[in-house]
Amino acid sequence: MSALAASGALPRASLLQFHVTEDKAVNLKTARSKIEESLSGGGGGEKPKLLVLPEVWNSPYATSAFTEYAEELPSVEKGEDMMGSESAKMLSEAAKEFEVFIVGGSVPEREGEDIYNTCMVFNPAGVLVAKHRKVHLFDIDVPGGISFKESDTLTAGGDLLTTFETGDRLFGTVGVGICYDIRFPEMALLLTKERDVSMICLPGAFNMTTGPAHWELLQRARAVDCQAYVLTASPARATDEMLEKVKKEGKFPPYTAWGHSTAVNPWGEVIGTCNEGEAIVEVEIDMRKSKEMKTNIPTALQKRSDLYKVDVEA
Amino acid sequence: MSALAASGALPRASLLQFHVTEDKAVNLKTARSKIEESLSGGGGGEKPKLLVLPEVWNSPYATSAFTEYAEELPSVEKGEDMMGSESAKMLSEAAKEFEVFIVGGSVPEREGEDIYNTCMVFNPAGVLVAKHRKVHLFDIDVPGGISFKESDTLTAGGDLLTTFETGDRLFGTVGVGICYDIRFPEMALLLTKERDVSMICLPGAFNMTTGPAHWELLQRARAVDCQAYVLTASPARATDEMLEKVKKEGKFPPYTAWGHSTAVNPWGEVIGTCNEGEAIVEVEIDMRKSKEMKTNIPTALQKRSDLYKVDVEA
Repeated sequence: MSALAASGALPRASLLQFHVTEDKAVNLKTARSKIEESLSGGGGGEKPKLLVLPEVWNSPYATSAFTEYAEELPSVEKGEDMMGSESAKMLSEAAKEFEVFIVGGSVPEREGEDIYNTCMVFNPAGVLVAKHRKVHLFDIDVPGGISFKESDTLTAGGDLLTTFETGDRLFGTVGVGICYDIRFPEMALLLTKERDVSMICLPGAFNMTTGPAHWELLQRARAVDCQAYVLTASPARATDEMLEKVKKEGKFPPYTAWGHSTAVNPWGEVIGTCNEGEAIVEVEIDMRKSKEMKTNIPTALQKRSDLYKVDVEA
Repeated sequence: MSALAASGALPRASLLQFHVTEDKAVNLKTARSKIEESLSGGGGGEKPKLLVLPEVWNSPYATSAFTEYAEELPSVEKGEDMMGSESAKMLSEAAKEFEVFIVGGSVPEREGEDIYNTCMVFNPAGVLVAKHRKVHLFDIDVPGGISFKESDTLTAGGDLLTTFETGDRLFGTVGVGICYDIRFPEMALLLTKERDVSMICLPGAFNMTTGPAHWELLQRARAVDCQAYVLTASPARATDEMLEKVKKEGKFPPYTAWGHSTAVNPWGEVIGTCNEGEAIVEVEIDMRKSKEMKTNIPTALQKRSDLYKVDVEA
């Protein structure tokens, strides 16, 4: 353990894993109360400086729900106008009140005719500093496993690289992706090449087929590929009782999230995780681990740019 | 298990992990005998159709040894001329005798002033069908862990994509990389994009620092990224006795390989592995698993080529 770590001076981050229901008001209340809980840790320890919320936390994870639950969201350019979004308002106010960066999971966003799966990031002043619209939509069909087609109702985001600055005393430059985005190494490689991120936050809701197989693996892979921290937050898995209720009401198909919100360090080690139920995972972040690894195993400098190129399309 | 698997009709591949000494003649003899052993399985089962040998199996893994042990190697264009290379000759003859594809690990190759870390692939007719010169040289320095600088004596290869065809009844199109190449997702992504490989073979010699941390992780990551099999073969780890001998002689610095030759399927599951000692790991390969995954989770078709490009430099 480093001297700084021993003194407790390293900044901390928390992953908030909680249940999502069909009632948006309840979801807003839950999210707000989990934010509060994650910051109320007794005992004089440093409070987390960054929180990550789950993918689609204010709406059921169902293509048929996204339109109904979608809100118009603020833009980074006009960050002060919350556009009447209850979700943005709650996140902004909480970030300001508790002076914490909030990577606000994701919520369905309406813009004109389009619905996006969107992550808003608020800084400790409550200002929207980044907005990521999921770039790779989750369209998969594993027979006997999971079928889902986000593109039925969602539009894919048009901006690949979303980052925000937290400063070198906190987490450096932080990249944002959403769930299925993690399957595309190109995005992580370009977050590193273009922005030199030391952390990537990915709200996500993997499922019971790809969750056990790939959720942790992909996080550890992207961490080592990018020599950066990877933080994910998932909704808690619906209990049998909750799933029964959804089925009985018949309004939306039930979705069973894998849970297991996880934090991985740049060396690829899991430094914090949980099971499927509600949880707050608090971890210590040591930016120097990213810098160290980039120095010791300098893959970024060893790319064979004479033989291949990964580039953002202009 | 699929019907084909149950009937034993699926093709098999073997990873050959064996000790490498300072005596090239001994190494040649060991490699030849391990090839024979891997194909002599009693009991009427199908014999493996492809073998993978370890990285640098005819020479100590030491930069100061590469020049001394290097041989001029044949070229794919003039595959019949073994250029006087004992290592090529042995591999070619064994491939022909046993009618098996041999991914011949790697050996130091001399061409003019340059020394490369080179993998030769022979087909069941004993013809050299592919030659890969390690593209990313292993230059790392982890204080308190491992320091190594291949570029002290090696030149990096100038061709990124090395593949060979085995046919759809065997392993489809197989890509080749060497060890540190695995840390560069770009190479695996381009093997998939340009050649649609269903398998990547990587002779490698990870060490006691990065081995436990990253060897299996990177194999599973590249398998899932590419939805292809990943097969690796490492030298067996030198025993204490062997290390003592090398230290005593003082000719080359000792290197302690991690071992753990491993095969991973396209879903990211380890289907065969071993510990640090000598071992032959035989696995069954079901090409349909690669095709299935590419259909069910069609990431290759979901790349956002409007937002990013990974390309081979012309």
